[in-house]
Amino acid sequence: MANVTIIGAGAMGSALTVPLIKNEHKVNLWGTELDEDIITDLRKGRPHPKHKVKLPEEIETFRVDELEAAMQEAEIVIMAITSDALAKIFKRVIPFLKKDMIVASVSKGFEYNNENEIVILPEILKELLPDELKDEIPLVVVGGPSKAIEVVLDAPTSVTYASDDEEAARYLQEIIQTDVYNVEISTDVLGVEVCAAVKNSYAIGLGLADGFEKQNSQTYSNTKSAIFTFAVAEMKKLVEILGGEFASVIGLPGVGDLQVTGEAGRNRGFGEVVGSGITGEEAIQKMREDDITVEGYRATRFAYELATRLADEGKLDLNEVPLLSTLYGLLYENEPSLEKTTELLNKCTDGFYN
Amino acid sequence: MANVTIIGAGAMGSALTVPLIKNEHKVNLWGTELDEDIITDLRKGRPHPKHKVKLPEEIETFRVDELEAAMQEAEIVIMAITSDALAKIFKRVIPFLKKDMIVASVSKGFEYNNENEIVILPEILKELLPDELKDEIPLVVVGGPSKAIEVVLDAPTSVTYASDDEEAARYLQEIIQTDVYNVEISTDVLGVEVCAAVKNSYAIGLGLADGFEKQNSQTYSNTKSAIFTFAVAEMKKLVEILGGEFASVIGLPGVGDLQVTGEAGRNRGFGEVVGSGITGEEAIQKMREDDITVEGYRATRFAYELATRLADEGKLDLNEVPLLSTLYGLLYENEPSLEKTTELLNKCTDGFYN
Repeated sequence: MANVTIIGAGAMGSALTVPLIKNEHKVNLWGTELDEDIITDLRKGRPHPKHKVKLPEEIETFRVDELEAAMQEAEIVIMAITSDALAKIFKRVIPFLKKDMIVASVSKGFEYNNENEIVILPEILKELLPDELKDEIPLVVVGGPSKAIEVVLDAPTSVTYASDDEEAARYLQEIIQTDVYNVEISTDVLGVEVCAAVKNSYAIGLGLADGFEKQNSQTYSNTKSAIFTFAVAEMKKLVEILGGEFASVIGLPGVGDLQVTGEAGRNRGFGEVVGSGITGEEAIQKMREDDITVEGYRATRFAYELATRLADEGKLDLNEVPLLSTLYGLLYENEPSLEKTTELLNKCTDGFYN
Repeated sequence: MANVTIIGAGAMGSALTVPLIKNEHKVNLWGTELDEDIITDLRKGRPHPKHKVKLPEEIETFRVDELEAAMQEAEIVIMAITSDALAKIFKRVIPFLKKDMIVASVSKGFEYNNENEIVILPEILKELLPDELKDEIPLVVVGGPSKAIEVVLDAPTSVTYASDDEEAARYLQEIIQTDVYNVEISTDVLGVEVCAAVKNSYAIGLGLADGFEKQNSQTYSNTKSAIFTFAVAEMKKLVEILGGEFASVIGLPGVGDLQVTGEAGRNRGFGEVVGSGITGEEAIQKMREDDITVEGYRATRFAYELATRLADEGKLDLNEVPLLSTLYGLLYENEPSLEKTTELLNKCTDGFYN
């Protein structure tokens, strides 16, 4: 039996309690200030408000002011915090971290580090760790297609746990893997994280095709498939240039996660709004009015800026990421979506996808 | 201006008239005995009955008994015939073929050749050609995601034309490519065709997840994504063992076509029926009652038999194609779909997808 503390009681944090409790581990679930109502519901034996399903009774819940108690005896700490709040919350967790604990993170995205470089989130976590812990706490990242509610409801799921410290990843696999929650191990942290970060952007691209359908009352499945193929090719380019492995792109973190993100979710939905014929600016305004956070909007800016920097360094030609460039143009420069997507497909020249 | 004769007035044959006429070529559309009503409708200026849309007026239509006239002056012959009837119809076309004509084919699937080997359809066409024409008539195959109605309605589309004779493929590209119908060229006929043949089988796999949703009133997106990733990995294995190129798998013919086939279509629909909780036998019976042909049902048997033969030759371990084996078990041995799919995902071990 392991002691696992999950930081963040939102959709994914609470979902991971299910395989952990099934394996009879001790699970502490700590809620941030945004999770107070969730913790209240759980303590009253009510369903989790995001899942509308009851979580296992065995989990122990902790309120925002009970972090120290939640971290008592923790061997594994799972950070399940939205990307934008990750650094802030991790700083609060750090005082309770000890040598040989394992930290896992499910947050995805790019961020600026202290040198204003664009990096994947595990780099931010490493940067924040005090020097004496930097080499003592293995970081494990979680990639691949996993909608949280389906983890709660035992839908067969396959994910990738990646770490520089393979042993740590394997230990976590042993702790959490069940008959339906399958974990493969990878050492390609960079590849897994880059795929995870850019897939939200590319999912907007897939949503465009659904928007064209609304706009013109005819399906655009061919267009969507071509966009999917462009997305895979560009993930491959970006991952390889940044030093990750193609295996991540062709596997669960890349192709797999892109498939699920492109079928449903907020990023695809945002793309559909853009594709329906309004500008990127109008579309993001609409999402904000509906209080919907679109991770892919920010991810597109980050990914495009990263690509531009790589181009400046002579490592990438922007023509090698035409879908990303198109998405940036639609979202940030209000270019017309169907016209620009039509032009994008004209760039499908021989060997582009190879 | 080129003279193009299209053999088969069904969905895809008639769709390809649209880019050809846009490029101002002379297009003859010949209908088989099954297309008589289609030709009648077209001659009366009515919409094509499958597309519910009028085709360009400039095309010239030919009835089943007018094949000779249809083939007069043909420079390019496009075979747009269902897989099962391809050989039969091609035999009728052969007497009108001449040196330096180009034959293109949109039919997909596996077939037994005269030596009882399982081969891709272009091999069957080659086998049927008289010796004096075998090296004189370039064959071009069409792969990649293209729903016919969307080609008719000018949805941006990207496809792959593959041929051993690159010049022939490039000439056809020049003839047919428009602002919305994009053609990339490949010389990997085998890779393109194997992807096209097995994707109908794998699309059944993707449909299973939609069936589980019906069966249990919860989504199975994670499961579907894992199946998608398995499918890509297995296409890679099969294509590489058979001597094709990975570029086809990662590109439009593989990943791209799988994406569109898994979102809609009869194969996905058949998978959904199986996944909803009835046996493979009951499901195919149901489809037959509704007069729906499921190409993937036959493709699964062919692909599994091919895999078994490769295993007998020591070229493949059947454990390397667990999704295909699972599909065969569901469709032909009435195994329980959700249980076997759960077991399939347990086979997602480290490095499987690489």
